[in-house]
This record gives sequence, structure tokens and C-alpha cells, in this order.
Amino acid sequence: MSCLLMRAAERAQLAMMLEVCAYPKPGNVDRCHDYPDTRLEHFLASTIFARTALEEAEQGTGRIGEIIKHAVRDTNCHLGGNTHFGAFILLIPLIYGKGIPGALSAIEKTDVSDAVAFYKAFAMTSVKMNTTDELDVKDPHTLTLIRERDMTLFDIMRHSAPNDMVAREWVTGFPLTRRGADLLRQSGEGRQAIVQAFLTLLASEPDTFIIKKHGLAVARETMYRAREVLDGNHSLEAFDADCIARDINPGSIADIVIASIYIALGEGWSWDS
Amino acid sequence: MSCLLMRAAERAQLAMMLEVCAYPKPGNVDRCHDYPDTRLEHFLASTIFARTALEEAEQGTGRIGEIIKHAVRDTNCHLGGNTHFGAFILLIPLIYGKGIPGALSAIEKTDVSDAVAFYKAFAMTSVKMNTTDELDVKDPHTLTLIRERDMTLFDIMRHSAPNDMVAREWVTGFPLTRRGADLLRQSGEGRQAIVQAFLTLLASEPDTFIIKKHGLAVARETMYRAREVLDGNHSLEAFDADCIARDINPGSIADIVIASIYIALGEGWSWDS
Repeated sequence: MSCLLMRAAERAQLAMMLEVCAYPKPGNVDRCHDYPDTRLEHFLASTIFARTALEEAEQGTGRIGEIIKHAVRDTNCHLGGNTHFGAFILLIPLIYGKGIPGALSAIEKTDVSDAVAFYKAFAMTSVKMNTTDELDVKDPHTLTLIRERDMTLFDIMRHSAPNDMVAREWVTGFPLTRRGADLLRQSGEGRQAIVQAFLTLLASEPDTFIIKKHGLAVARETMYRAREVLDGNHSLEAFDADCIARDINPGSIADIVIASIYIALGEGWSWDS
Repeated sequence: MSCLLMRAAERAQLAMMLEVCAYPKPGNVDRCHDYPDTRLEHFLASTIFARTALEEAEQGTGRIGEIIKHAVRDTNCHLGGNTHFGAFILLIPLIYGKGIPGALSAIEKTDVSDAVAFYKAFAMTSVKMNTTDELDVKDPHTLTLIRERDMTLFDIMRHSAPNDMVAREWVTGFPLTRRGADLLRQSGEGRQAIVQAFLTLLASEPDTFIIKKHGLAVARETMYRAREVLDGNHSLEAFDADCIARDINPGSIADIVIASIYIALGEGWSWDS
């Protein structure tokens, strides 16, 4: 078997594994760094447990909201908290639609049942929302509101897009995912290319996960510092250490990089040099 | 879903992942150390690609030799060389037989077709044999000899047992696998327990992978030094650094520890503290 013949579900698992192992990545869990409650092993366990849901997406039959719910449910059995919620939001339509154009068609076909399943998945995670959000996942009326307004999962993503760059990928046609895949292919092979693509995306947009946790100023500062590292004016290791000390972890860029690796692997990019 | 409800194939994948991530492990690839040609990512990619063969074992229908061949074939698509051949030899009957007693029954039922499939799997790896071995995998007459003598896969393991501690597990009833599982349960949870079980097994028998590569004297010295580390008379980090410098990697103990983790997980041992 050539790795080029691997199944889409395996390619997605490989992308999840390669992203978390790549180092040094500023602020995130990587081969050299754990958080006290979320460790490398938690990310890798989720990579294993996600298989069944990723295979469901590969079959392209079930509903996207339900498949995202299954992925969250099946990877929720360890003590490491949420590891891949954002990644599943990107990977599942990309697998289901066999690429970005098909993902966009699939997204347009989501309905209120997908939105409800997605909110049930969301409620299983500890992912933070914006405190002012009208569709608060902790509020039992939210599901009623979604049903009353007959909101599709695409509507939910449109609602979330201003504050969430993962949701924004659905609405804007996966531009950062695409850009990350191109960066990987331009940056050579394997681990170094992943770090390079990660830093370049981080330098181009404020990470919305950082915004939710620390506010826009810190997200912007992180973006500028990633640019300084790329320009050779700042050490990556020092940047990483500072992010870790201040609990700044660019989790949304990490989700997008996973989707980028998935796409790049399908286009022949080599992780294995 | 509770992790206690995980499928046998997932438990085996989790065991493969946890073993390679545990550190520091003297001489082997771990979270802190790669070999130039075989890296952490290769071990983790094999963990992902093994899924289909491990599921075959879980169904308990096909033939063990053929399933081992599928596991080797499916994990052979990267450039990292052999990562888990020994682990598959242990895991596949353990999954197939739903534990050690069932594995022993399954092993007794192997026939010449299992032996032939196994040799074909062996030929796909770069695993070394003893140079004086009559059943040399590189010799095209070996398959003829196996067929002429009507050797079962159990016969092959009996033939290999004196020089290979993984084969010996088949013949002697998985005593080291069992002991490793008990050690894990006695040593607490997670990563530290894996390192402790690894060192204790390493201190109890010369690793046959080291014997094949460096001879018995080096394997014995490694065993004594593991004992010194356990007794607190030598630092684990210094032992690890020295093994790496001298290219001494206890690969057979690593295979057995994977099987031990698999058994311990099924008995409720917690990897996740």
C-alpha cells in the first residue's frame, strides 16, 4: 500500500497526529509541551477515537451535524477536555464533500436537524462562547430558538463567523484552509513545513480562540510577534515560552492547520521525508 | 462513551500510542527522541494505519497469519521502516482470542497457511534474523521448507523462541506480557507507570532485539543498568543518553510493553490521570 492510497478518514487522522506532534508551535500542546490538564496523549487518543465518525463522513451518507456530534461524543471519553471540536467542524464537511467545492455544497444543504445536533455536540464540550451570544449553548432555550427560526447549521456558522474563524471558513469558502495547504506545499516536507505554515497563518489573522480568552489586543500582539519570528527578528523558542507562560494558545489556527494538512496530503504533499 | 467501553482495536491502538509517547525510555524512540530514519510520527502513523487489521482480529474470523500480514502491509507505507512487527505478533492473537487464554487456543490452531502468511509479512519488514537461522526469510527455499515440513505458525514461534522473546511469549503463555500488565496496575496511572513497567521488564530479561544487534554481553549490561536505575543508583536520563549514543534500543521489551498496556487497559488500568 502506498500512503497516497490512504483512505480519507486515515488522512484526517494523520493530519490530526502530524499537527499536534509538530514543534515548536507557539503556546499550543506539542511534542515538547503539555498543559496541566490536556496532554499530547489526549490529542492522540482523540485522533484514534475519531475514526468511526471520520469513516461516517467518508461514506458521505449521514447528516453533517450528526457526524460532528458523533466525533465529539466518541472523543469525549478522556479527561483532557475538548481537543478537536474546531478541527471536526472543518474536517467533516471536507471529507464528506471530497474536497472544498463538495464541502461547500454539503454545507449549503444543512438544515435545522444539523443545527440541533451541532448544538448538542457543542454542549458536550467545554468550548467557550462569547458571553453576549444570543445562541448560548448553556441556555436551554437556544434549541427552541433554533427550531423556531428554522436555522440551518450554515445559518449557525454565519451567526458565529464574526467571532470565530473556524465558522468563518464555512461561510467564506475555506480560504485559510486552502492557504495553509498551499503554504505546506511551498514549505517543503514534514514537520518544518507544518511549523512554517502554522506561523504564517498566525501572522496573517488574529486567532479567535485567543480573542475569546484574552481579548483582541493580545490576539493582535500574538499575530505581530509571529510576523517578527518569520522575519527572523524574534526567536520561535522565546515566543513559544512566552505564550506558554501567559496561557496564550492559538487553538483556532491549529484547527485550520489540521484541515490544511488534510487537504495537502490529498494533493500529494509529503509528511514523510 | 466511557473509555472503558472502547473497542479492542482502539485499545490496541491506544496501547501503541501510549508506549511510544512515554518517556524517558532508554534508547527507544519516545516523545523526546527520534532516530534519524524512524521518528515518533512513523510510530504514530503505524498506529493509525493498523486499524483495519486490528479490527479484523477483533472479528475473530480470519486467520492469524494473514491478519499479521495485513497489519504489516498496511503500516509499511511510510519511510520509517518496521515499527510494530513484534507488537502485532503479540496484539493480534490477544485481540483475536479476547485475552491470554483465548490467544493460546488460537495459537494452537494455527496451520501451515498461517506460517506462510507470516513469512511473507516478515519479508516485507527489515527485521533482522539470526544469521545462522535455517528458516531465513531472505532465502526463497524457506517457504518450500515450511510447506514440506507442514510447519504451523506455532512451530515457527517454537523455532524462534530461543532467540526471540516475542516468539517466546507465544510458546510460554505470555508471561512477560502478563507481568507487564500487573506492573502497570501496581505502578499507578499513566506515563510514569509505563516507564516503571518498561524498566522493570528490561531489568529482568536480556532484550533479544539488543542481542541480535549487539550480542548477549551488551543486552546483559543493559539489563543490569536498568536494575541500577530502578535501585536509584543510576540516573534514567544518563542511561537513556548512553543507550542512544551507542544505538542500543530495547525493541522487544517495547513490543511486550505494548501488549501489557493492551491487557492492563482491558482490566481497567487508567492511562489518563
